[in-house]
This record gives sequence, structure tokens and C-alpha cells, in this order.
Amino acid sequence: MCYHIYMKTFFATDIKDGIVKLNNDEHNHLKNVMRLNVNDKVKVVTGDEYDYFCTITNIGKSETTLKVDSRQLNNSNPHTKLTCYMALIKNDNLSLIVQKLTELGCSDFVPFESQYTVNKDKGTKTDKLNTITQQSIKQCGRSKPMTIHSTISLKDIKPLLSQHDLIIFANETEKSMPLNQVLLENSNAKNIAFIVGCEGGFTEEEINYLVDSGAKSVTLGSRILRAETASIMLASIILYEFKEYC
Amino acid sequence: MCYHIYMKTFFATDIKDGIVKLNNDEHNHLKNVMRLNVNDKVKVVTGDEYDYFCTITNIGKSETTLKVDSRQLNNSNPHTKLTCYMALIKNDNLSLIVQKLTELGCSDFVPFESQYTVNKDKGTKTDKLNTITQQSIKQCGRSKPMTIHSTISLKDIKPLLSQHDLIIFANETEKSMPLNQVLLENSNAKNIAFIVGCEGGFTEEEINYLVDSGAKSVTLGSRILRAETASIMLASIILYEFKEYC
Repeated sequence: MCYHIYMKTFFATDIKDGIVKLNNDEHNHLKNVMRLNVNDKVKVVTGDEYDYFCTITNIGKSETTLKVDSRQLNNSNPHTKLTCYMALIKNDNLSLIVQKLTELGCSDFVPFESQYTVNKDKGTKTDKLNTITQQSIKQCGRSKPMTIHSTISLKDIKPLLSQHDLIIFANETEKSMPLNQVLLENSNAKNIAFIVGCEGGFTEEEINYLVDSGAKSVTLGSRILRAETASIMLASIILYEFKEYC
Repeated sequence: MCYHIYMKTFFATDIKDGIVKLNNDEHNHLKNVMRLNVNDKVKVVTGDEYDYFCTITNIGKSETTLKVDSRQLNNSNPHTKLTCYMALIKNDNLSLIVQKLTELGCSDFVPFESQYTVNKDKGTKTDKLNTITQQSIKQCGRSKPMTIHSTISLKDIKPLLSQHDLIIFANETEKSMPLNQVLLENSNAKNIAFIVGCEGGFTEEEINYLVDSGAKSVTLGSRILRAETASIMLASIILYEFKEYC
């Protein structure tokens, strides 16, 4: 099994009749960086539940063709469904979060704009975040990337939150409710979400709206965490409590 | 108290007879970025247990002078003693780890060289990491930075490990021992350490040496984490279990 994990992995958008075609970056990486040859064995992931074990049949100028030898259910996909609702922050930090949350085992990522979102950070590129999570699954062994959703406005979050049976909200004005108590009291949750704001935090009105939408306000202790640190820390702890790292 | 937390904070190397002097970057930041004036109130930290509340008395060409009005025990310093032993990895990622572990609440950071450390990454700059942890405490509210130790060779780690009463070792060849079991069985630990290797992992000999030195080998689950992700995730989970985020 270790052999499979460490096989060189490529991301393909689709597989048709047992044939995979790699173009652009993936083709270039296989040919010019990895310098693989016809008949070499590689793993291909396409964003579904399976790993596809393939043999390279042709390396052309702009395209590599592979034949699928077998497929196997991937066992590194997360078992827990965890969605991160993350305020838009600097693009570099958003990229960092998407890479890390993919490795840690988050399922979904929903960026949002709130009142303190800085204007210049708006309009994050979903395509870029999709590329980052696809690159990240190749490294960490998942076959399904984190689903990157379109950016929403915080005021439209309520109907989305209603699908989750536990919603954790990192609230720096919260003084009394620690994260461990909320996790302990909701250990049967199956579809979990956490919400992290931008550097400026939330307005009082937004805090009330989130709590009214069913989000459980928690404190993360006495140190003030950067937005990206809070996000990575919360994903780590929630997935740990839900036995994702055993 | 919130007023204190959000006061503009500066790092000074020493305080003498109730007078603080800021030079270089800190002076420049106060004068040219923050554009503060004589009589403005700021917080100064020096790396000890206290916050110093000061009034600016003079802003010169290359130095700012402040008078200490009062001092108060800082309540954002970590209560748990947690040391991270981290293999040398790319400098950017090492900087990222030092920033994040400071916010999360680690006490000590010990970089080490192991057999798979890539040569070009050797010789990390302790000074740079010290600057990063000092900047990070100003943002997160600690008054004591994480102590950055000199780089050691992994083969010299045994005597250092003997000071800890729990040593967690992220071992990607470990299949059976989950992190939560080790943490549960050692909930009385007071001086904890965790060890994370470089991208290439550890040799079998190194693994045996670490286990022989008292390190408890744990698995972090089925996904392969980047070195910096493992480090941030482990700090988050260990400090969470030791009630650092309540």
C-alpha cells in the first residue's frame, strides 16, 4: 500500500473508455519535470473516490496518453464532512489555508465577504484555489479535492448553515464558551462547519446574525490568532476530535 | 482589558530605570508607519512575563524614548510548556511555523538536522526566527516570545529529550498508535515535546534512536502531511488537549 501512496500522481479532468489524457501543466510536469517515459506506471486522480493506476502509452508534444490498468477506492479521503466558511483575506493566506485544509481533511470551502472585508481582497479567484486543492491532494494522498464554492455574502449564509448539524463560530468577543465543551456536547455530529472571520473580525450585528443562524460561538483562548492560523487550528482540532487522525 | 490587548505594541530589548528606548525597526515603525506622537500611550514588551504601559516622551531622528507608567503580568503567555523539535526545511516554511507556533502557544523551538535534511536548507538563521517570533507576540498578545534554540544534530537530541515528561514523535511509518491515545494516557504531563521530521522523513536508524530516547511514535492518520502542516496541526491539538484554548 505504501507503494501506491508514494507513486507519482497526476490530476486528470476525465477518464474515457479506460484512457486518460494529460495536457498543459500535468503533461508538462510528467514529461519535463518528472521525465517519465512510455511504460512507466503512475497514479491518476480525477476528483472522484478512486485512485486509477495507469501505464503511460504515449508522450506527445502537448499531451500524454495513459491506459488505466486498475482502480481502487482511495482510503485517504476524509470520513468526516467538514466545511470551512472563511472570510476573504489576503490571497496568499487564502491559498495557504486551502492547501493546509486539504491535507488536514476538510471537505468544503466557502469564502465569504463580510462588513470588515477589505475591498482589495474581494474577488478571490476560485480557479486558483481549485488548482491549489488539486495539487494538494496529489501530495497528501486524497483522490477528492476539497470543493471550493463561489464567494457568498455573509448575509446569505443562513440557508447554507441549516444543512449542518454543528456550526462552530470563532468569535473573539466570546469569553466563556470553550471549543472543547461544544465538541464534547456534539460528538454525534455528522456534517460540521466552522466559521472564521477576516482580520477585522465581525460587527455586532453579524455576530448576532450568526448565532441566530445556529452557529455556536466559541473562544479560542487568550491569544489573538491571525485569521489563517485560526482556520488551520480549528480544522486540526475538530478533525482530531472526530477521529480523523487515527 | 481589551483596551490593553489592542494597544499598539512594541518590542524593546531592555528597560532601565523606567525608561525604554526604541531603535531601528521599532523606532521606524512607531514614527513613520504608525505616526505616533509624544504623549501617546503604547504597550512595550521585552520578552519577560510583563506588559509595560508607556508614554512616549521623545521621538528623535533614530530613537524613540518612552517612560514606563505601569506594568502588568501578561495573561496571554502560554501556561503549558510545549517544545517543538523541527527538522530543517525550506526557510520560508520554517518562518511560517515559527510565526504560527508563537500564536498557538508553544514555548520553545529547536531546529535539527537529520540524515534526510537537504543540504541547501542547512544553516537556518536563528536571528531571523527570533525576529519572527518577536513580531508575532506583538500581534497575538504574548509578552514572551517562543525561545528559538540553536540548530542541533538529531544524534545529540537524547539528553535534551530527557527533560520532557511526554515526547510525541510524528512517525509516518507508525500504523497503530493514534495521537489521542497517547495524549489521553499522559494527561498529567507538564513539560511536553513533539518532533517533526523533514519532507524526506527519518531513516530506520533515526526512528529507533528516537523511540529509544523515550519518544512516543504516533500516526497522524492516512493523509501525508507536509512537514509544516504536521507541526502546526500537532501544536494545535496538543495545546487544545492541555486546555490552552479555554
